[in-house]
Amino acid sequence: MSEQNAVKPVPKHQQVRDSLAAEIRGLEPHSPLAAERDLAAAHGVSRATIRIALDALSEAGVVYRVQGAGTFVAGPTISKTLVLSSFTEDMEVRGWTATSRLLAADRVAAGGEVADDLGIDAQDEVVRLSRIRLADGTPICMETVHLPAGWVPGLLDRDLNTSLYGILEGDYGLHVVRAEQVVRAVVMDVGEAALLGQPPGSPALRVHRIGLDQRDRPIESTTSVYRGDLYDLRFAIHR
Amino acid sequence: MSEQNAVKPVPKHQQVRDSLAAEIRGLEPHSPLAAERDLAAAHGVSRATIRIALDALSEAGVVYRVQGAGTFVAGPTISKTLVLSSFTEDMEVRGWTATSRLLAADRVAAGGEVADDLGIDAQDEVVRLSRIRLADGTPICMETVHLPAGWVPGLLDRDLNTSLYGILEGDYGLHVVRAEQVVRAVVMDVGEAALLGQPPGSPALRVHRIGLDQRDRPIESTTSVYRGDLYDLRFAIHR
Repeated sequence: MSEQNAVKPVPKHQQVRDSLAAEIRGLEPHSPLAAERDLAAAHGVSRATIRIALDALSEAGVVYRVQGAGTFVAGPTISKTLVLSSFTEDMEVRGWTATSRLLAADRVAAGGEVADDLGIDAQDEVVRLSRIRLADGTPICMETVHLPAGWVPGLLDRDLNTSLYGILEGDYGLHVVRAEQVVRAVVMDVGEAALLGQPPGSPALRVHRIGLDQRDRPIESTTSVYRGDLYDLRFAIHR
Repeated sequence: MSEQNAVKPVPKHQQVRDSLAAEIRGLEPHSPLAAERDLAAAHGVSRATIRIALDALSEAGVVYRVQGAGTFVAGPTISKTLVLSSFTEDMEVRGWTATSRLLAADRVAAGGEVADDLGIDAQDEVVRLSRIRLADGTPICMETVHLPAGWVPGLLDRDLNTSLYGILEGDYGLHVVRAEQVVRAVVMDVGEAALLGQPPGSPALRVHRIGLDQRDRPIESTTSVYRGDLYDLRFAIHR
């Protein structure tokens, strides 16, 4: 974020959002927030600005609203909406710090399934990264990412304990703007359970993602295993 | 479907879709379909019609396409897209017969959570239905539906081993047009596992749905537990 700040100022509602998120971290789940007019006065901004900030926090699942009763602190579950955002962004909006623990990073032949995902040949090389993603130090998910090796020269020499989407955008000009996802319920195997600090057999959401760039080229084939007790998906559907 | 057929003819592409779905049921997963021009000739329709029918089957997860290679029979997994459709409709498009086994049906006080979902008081009565949903006789999910009792007089006297959305629309003029959903991974408890014919501890997708009508009034609060081995969610997300 700090490089961005040097370039353009952070909008007021975003500053308010971040300081509200920080205040909320000290509160019990389901405790009420102050009224909008009091929050506006306390932050020296308009009620409209407070409302935009609360909308963002509500969208991110940090708070929830009950009609006629006000705004409340959400539980510790990470509720993912259907907007394509990175793990790092999802945690930032909650005021949490996203970190990664790199488990393995190598170059391998893509193999059939990954090759299908990425539209390359099975013998073409991919960079494969396995990482644990943590929120404020708590392991939330284990992910394995495959990227076409030719597109990310030198990636294995970089610090990979940070936002991968940040590196792809900043260093390689690769922007994932759309993704095809398949979500299913699984139980953690012994390895996943140990890495996520859960008993084997614990429930997990397995998300398989093919990430595509502006020109609809597949950039990544990623499988993430999220702790079922801390992570859910929320969305509206229509006829 | 038969009442509808009497009123308006089934479009050609839908007839073709249904007969293709029937043919596909006899094929092994991942076996190739005939080329579009051969399917068009065999069904006596244009390639455009075949394409519309295949689009519908692909959208429903019955077939999948590989660029340059053709169309293939999908595996037995039920892939749910983000369109609001009933279980009965989801099975029909696959050429499967949806049935229900009613476990319990009664009137109870809503209680806190269901009351919040439905925008009623905790002591207000709801009709509660628990059912197993089956596809061609295989149990796929266990669901518990809550409906405001005042909106569905006499519901408990009807045959509930059929499409509930069909009854709500046909008999009560209630149309669920939008739903808020929360999806999480769980493991089946002993009861769920027995009813779904799986070992206890098997993975399941738990979908909590609040269904809303055209005027955005909550009509149903439903929790469904789907077999994780047979059911997944597929969708695209965007920045």
